Amino acid sequence: MIHTGRHFLQIPGPTNVPDRVLRAIDSPVLDHRGPEFAKLGMDVLENIRPIFQTTGSVIIYPASGSGAWESAIVNTLSSGDRVLMFETGHFSLLWRQVAERFDLKVEYVPGNWRGGAVASEVEARLGSDRQHTFKAVMVVHNETSTGVTSQISEVRRAMNNVHHPALLMVDTISSLASTDYRHEEWEVDVTIGGSQKGLMLPPGLSFNAISEKALSANKQAKLPRSYWDWQEMLKYNQTGFFPYTPATNLLYGLREALLMLHEEGLPNVFRRHARHAEAARVAVRNWGLEIVCENPGEYSNSVTVAFMPEGHDADRLRNVILENFDMSIGAGLSKLTGKVFRIGHLGSFNDLMLAGTLSGIEMGLAVAGVPHRKGGVTAALQSLLETKTKAEPVMLGK
Amino acid sequence: MIHTGRHFLQIPGPTNVPDRVLRAIDSPVLDHRGPEFAKLGMDVLENIRPIFQTTGSVIIYPASGSGAWESAIVNTLSSGDRVLMFETGHFSLLWRQVAERFDLKVEYVPGNWRGGAVASEVEARLGSDRQHTFKAVMVVHNETSTGVTSQISEVRRAMNNVHHPALLMVDTISSLASTDYRHEEWEVDVTIGGSQKGLMLPPGLSFNAISEKALSANKQAKLPRSYWDWQEMLKYNQTGFFPYTPATNLLYGLREALLMLHEEGLPNVFRRHARHAEAARVAVRNWGLEIVCENPGEYSNSVTVAFMPEGHDADRLRNVILENFDMSIGAGLSKLTGKVFRIGHLGSFNDLMLAGTLSGIEMGLAVAGVPHRKGGVTAALQSLLETKTKAEPVMLGK
Amino acid sequence: MIHTGRHFLQIPGPTNVPDRVLRAIDSPVLDHRGPEFAKLGMDVLENIRPIFQTTGSVIIYPASGSGAWESAIVNTLSSGDRVLMFETGHFSLLWRQVAERFDLKVEYVPGNWRGGAVASEVEARLGSDRQHTFKAVMVVHNETSTGVTSQISEVRRAMNNVHHPALLMVDTISSLASTDYRHEEWEVDVTIGGSQKGLMLPPGLSFNAISEKALSANKQAKLPRSYWDWQEMLKYNQTGFFPYTPATNLLYGLREALLMLHEEGLPNVFRRHARHAEAARVAVRNWGLEIVCENPGEYSNSVTVAFMPEGHDADRLRNVILENFDMSIGAGLSKLTGKVFRIGHLGSFNDLMLAGTLSGIEMGLAVAGVPHRKGGVTAALQSLLETKTKAEPVMLGK
Amino acid sequence: MIHTGRHFLQIPGPTNVPDRVLRAIDSPVLDHRGPEFAKLGMDVLENIRPIFQTTGSVIIYPASGSGAWESAIVNTLSSGDRVLMFETGHFSLLWRQVAERFDLKVEYVPGNWRGGAVASEVEARLGSDRQHTFKAVMVVHNETSTGVTSQISEVRRAMNNVHHPALLMVDTISSLASTDYRHEEWEVDVTIGGSQKGLMLPPGLSFNAISEKALSANKQAKLPRSYWDWQEMLKYNQTGFFPYTPATNLLYGLREALLMLHEEGLPNVFRRHARHAEAARVAVRNWGLEIVCENPGEYSNSVTVAFMPEGHDADRLRNVILENFDMSIGAGLSKLTGKVFRIGHLGSFNDLMLAGTLSGIEMGLAVAGVPHRKGGVTAALQSLLETKTKAEPVMLGK
Repeated sequence: MIHTGRHFLQIPGPTNVPDRVLRAIDSPVLDHRGPEFAKLGMDVLENIRPIFQTTGSVIIYPASGSGAWESAIVNTLSSGDRVLMFETGHFSLLWRQVAERFDLKVEYVPGNWRGGAVASEVEARLGSDRQHTFKAVMVVHNETSTGVTSQISEVRRAMNNVHHPALLMVDTISSLASTDYRHEEWEVDVTIGGSQKGLMLPPGLSFNAISEKALSANKQAKLPRSYWDWQEMLKYNQTGFFPYTPATNLLYGLREALLMLHEEGLPNVFRRHARHAEAARVAVRNWGLEIVCENPGEYSNSVTVAFMPEGHDADRLRNVILENFDMSIGAGLSKLTGKVFRIGHLGSFNDLMLAGTLSGIEMGLAVAGVPHRKGGVTAALQSLLETKTKAEPVMLGK
Repeated sequence: MIHTGRHFLQIPGPTNVPDRVLRAIDSPVLDHRGPEFAKLGMDVLENIRPIFQTTGSVIIYPASGSGAWESAIVNTLSSGDRVLMFETGHFSLLWRQVAERFDLKVEYVPGNWRGGAVASEVEARLGSDRQHTFKAVMVVHNETSTGVTSQISEVRRAMNNVHHPALLMVDTISSLASTDYRHEEWEVDVTIGGSQKGLMLPPGLSFNAISEKALSANKQAKLPRSYWDWQEMLKYNQTGFFPYTPATNLLYGLREALLMLHEEGLPNVFRRHARHAEAARVAVRNWGLEIVCENPGEYSNSVTVAFMPEGHDADRLRNVILENFDMSIGAGLSKLTGKVFRIGHLGSFNDLMLAGTLSGIEMGLAVAGVPHRKGGVTAALQSLLETKTKAEPVMLGK
Repeated sequence: MIHTGRHFLQIPGPTNVPDRVLRAIDSPVLDHRGPEFAKLGMDVLENIRPIFQTTGSVIIYPASGSGAWESAIVNTLSSGDRVLMFETGHFSLLWRQVAERFDLKVEYVPGNWRGGAVASEVEARLGSDRQHTFKAVMVVHNETSTGVTSQISEVRRAMNNVHHPALLMVDTISSLASTDYRHEEWEVDVTIGGSQKGLMLPPGLSFNAISEKALSANKQAKLPRSYWDWQEMLKYNQTGFFPYTPATNLLYGLREALLMLHEEGLPNVFRRHARHAEAARVAVRNWGLEIVCENPGEYSNSVTVAFMPEGHDADRLRNVILENFDMSIGAGLSKLTGKVFRIGHLGSFNDLMLAGTLSGIEMGLAVAGVPHRKGGVTAALQSLLETKTKAEPVMLGK
Repeated sequence: MIHTGRHFLQIPGPTNVPDRVLRAIDSPVLDHRGPEFAKLGMDVLENIRPIFQTTGSVIIYPASGSGAWESAIVNTLSSGDRVLMFETGHFSLLWRQVAERFDLKVEYVPGNWRGGAVASEVEARLGSDRQHTFKAVMVVHNETSTGVTSQISEVRRAMNNVHHPALLMVDTISSLASTDYRHEEWEVDVTIGGSQKGLMLPPGLSFNAISEKALSANKQAKLPRSYWDWQEMLKYNQTGFFPYTPATNLLYGLREALLMLHEEGLPNVFRRHARHAEAARVAVRNWGLEIVCENPGEYSNSVTVAFMPEGHDADRLRNVILENFDMSIGAGLSKLTGKVFRIGHLGSFNDLMLAGTLSGIEMGLAVAGVPHRKGGVTAALQSLLETKTKAEPVMLGK
């Protein structure tokens, strides 16, 4: 079937890349050792910091987010180190696997994939760790597979309550530039980010925002590293350069995307995502479907994940939607395969794109013969109207 | 207000240009007298013909559609010639002005801007013109200001019924590649087209499809002409070239757009537009608004025009929609200023873009405080679902 | 043969379009009646003026340069008007044909295609025209077919010497933004320009810069006009709009190109072109070839035209160069066909591009077996070095 | 200083990216788990193989070339393994550092940075290694810092002569798609490649072509790995997918670049590079400068490196060239800093671009006051002419 018009890319990342960013990427490569590059390098290294709400260093890798996971580990830990992780969903599982490949001893707090990291568990487990055998607490901020956002400030508070020196490492790949996230205020030691979500870029760049404490740990950490090594990066970054050839054209895109985010203003970016997420949930509920995230305080700004009715295959629905309405939505992953679908509403997005997205799902449910109530779209429009007109205080420090 | 995501450009043209076409345009210029250009020239000159459903010549101008109006006149007529035109709306009015600037004697059949050209009037007026003083009948196929599509086949039948030799000239600027239109079968002598509507290109190219009879008239026509002169064009076009520098990059875009249209298949293109137009009308009716076009047989595939409720200003609504939802819709023109708004649903478009478009209007009506019923979007989705599943015979020879 | 790397487009226009300009063109179309367009319109209408060195109005057409020739005529003259033109080359011939198609009585001062318009002839012919039957003097500033630049300031002086009220119309299509040209100071009434030369844009836009006197003439001029009509343009331009759909994406490009020219500074633009032209002539002379332009005071900044040795076909040379070195250079036109080749060195250009260009010709001469001395390139490099280091006063008021 | 026209990016990589490739990259992102992506994935995974002259697997990483160095090591070796490397220049030094960071015992055969890996040394050292303590021989094929290409086929022959089972790993980052290189015929076990050189892409992708023997080694190798892990890659690649989010837009570019290389034909690609390298050396010699590579059998196709005259700083020359002629050329690295400059002539390139490049250096030498003879450019043009006309057998199996 020939599709016309624009594809709706509503997976929870990669997200739709704005034309401005694509055009910036579509520029001639330049000498990565020359003065013009230095300006580019300084520009992005400086302007990426406020996105993480940090005044400290942010490392930029020519790599996918998975690389930044690995980087956080090999830069701060040593073989055999014990770390605390939470089973929030598929991506916590993958990060755990990375950790185990580097021979970390992972204590993996089990979860039902419908909630986030539990601060009281952090407090209990670290509290009883008098020997400080835990070297790090590693949390996925927004679990892309479930649409659940963990409360990082509470995790930090729990750690502080028991005065535990473990590093706090947070994966913000699908929450960065979508959900309020405060690297510095929440005393996070390593924040992992990626380019292809809220940052509105194609995949190919990833990030480590790092604390002074992480830098100290780096000096002790014994895992071997070269490509991911922070020290070389920091040394070269001082003058806007990189130790090896950076992904120049994606950096052009990053410069433009950062400009756009700063034009909009980060609080507005968060408000926008919260508002679209709210409308998406209204639609899901009106269709009579169940949202995976159980706790309203943990609803994701980036992605809404809904259960299919018993006996109906989410992947069939996704195919119907792709075939008939040229829209990609996210599949259920691991144990949620076929059971849920995921609506990405992050990055370069607006009310009418959301309306088109939800319309595609509502029509797809009908074409696929999935039992549902009509009217999800109408209810979502009503939600958008209400949140548009009322005062919208940004949820700070969520 | 900072807008995010994609602008919805839903005026009835210029329309959204597909990325493929924009990327084609974004190519280095080449020598317009060299062998590579000749291939480009032959390619577009050949592949544009089926779009007009003609095997004859199509002239491509580096000019807006208004230029192609003028071209049709100066190539076929002489000062003082009498022509028959119909008051279908704003664009018929503008074309009439062009005719009068070239000193044609226009018999302008009055209309209420809610219907198309009346075939019986053609028959009556030409029938009584025994001296054949009428040199041309000039009709706007799709009146972009009202959303009314005239029945060109009936106009032709009327002319044939009275055996009148006048030329038939038709403006298809906003119907070409959106609505079934048959230059050859309907014995049209000059068809005027533009790039920025169904052809999915930026503005800057326009067209004259011409009959043998028009070419004969060209030899007698005394209006002065140089830029618009067909003979020079036809001479150069034989080898793929143009008498003066063509708009190379727009021709790159044209090549790509023609490829896309031929990939989709013209009957599918027409069906798609008819289906979206039907859904748009369903929405309008469900909002409780009145459609300008009075005769269902004349509904436009490209644009739907709706009256505002008494006492409500369409331009205020448009501003509200632009400000709040980053969507451009069409204004009422001339005597319809402020009274109607126009929804463009032509060109590079699909179901979810239409859903977003109608959602923007439904929300805009609410924000602007315009009395309406909710549920237009829901009804439109229902219409899209119904027309998707049932057999959809293309309306041929409308 | 497969070509690699960049094509060298060294015809005297269209010229190489900078990436910045192509990327600007590769942007989504917008509503040509909306507020964002108004800003674009005001921007280009304002910033184009200094390029013509005028504070008056500049009309922008979605059309090729040939259209702007026609526009100058139909806006200011009436059928039967007498005009004075000079046989400077192929393009003066073409403009004459346009004039004659509009029934002007052209007095065409013969020339040998190696010199420009002769001011003394202007003075003599207008001086003896006591009845002021001449309504316009029409001169091609830079004759693209010969590489000869006429001295417009002297033509103006000649006209003033005899106090003749004829309009002065000048074609600057291949000199604008390459050679110092002063619409206002030289009291030119209509200046014709095009987008695809010094302005560094693809073809598709053309210009009329107009004087108050031209505007007065406009009110008396009886030639029919609609598309080209200045009054409608000026009316709409006041608010940044256009009477009919403008070539939006080319206007994006124009905005960017104007920005680039203003960044460089017009005097620097002229100096750059003069310097490259000088080096090109040095190369030609060192090859032992003869330059068409006989008078050093009339050398063109934009294009250098060289005679082939007797018995050698320029078009064969051009094909050899195109095939072997992937470079397009200009052909001889009309009576110079096969006798000369033309090197374009205008627009987005620099020293190394010129070096590549001249190298392609020097190697092409060898491959084609055209008698010549080697060393043209080396001499040109020497010239570039010398002109780089010495003070380079811009030739003002040439 | 404002630069005009195109920048000449003549460092030995990143290289000039063709417009076709940039435009391909400038396309909307798509779902990396959907059917359209699978086609893209299969396409690039299949078409990259012949570039390495292998029928085996090629791994594609979203990473710089340095990552592919690391990947080769962590996938095949274990901490404490002994490897043989050659001091060919700066990049061999860097790769050695990577090896040492992963605790390999590097036997680093000293070199004077003017020659390649010495096959007789390979034979001697491996021959005396009866215990097969050497696990790998690691050679930089084209040493980008010196312009010396090692003879991989001879290294292989040496290894075979002594029947040593060490893996052969070769860095082809700056030779791939520029110089004949035969992964399979030469029984290379891991070939490292990058996107930003002969492949004509921006930086951001890198490659491992792997042998069956390398895959066996992979199963024993104990170095920890996750991001670089081949097994996960190979598993996902079977259906065109990747274990983590790939750099989609760079893969679009890769698809286009591979298409271009296959259009040209790999033997032609090699011939083209050899021919340009020859002309570049002719220029250098004519300037009276000394080429770093001492052995003509090891001249690089990609980059020519020349010594400055005693007492003259290469970086000053490079700045002069960048400032005055807007060309970037390569700096001397490590112990060659300031002593040499490097001319990149690889990737998307042609005769006239080379002519421009060499002209920029010849003029730069003059402006910078570096003693030299003029005429390098003229001699290079002569070389280009001679190699154009004579039969040019591709140097196979160099």
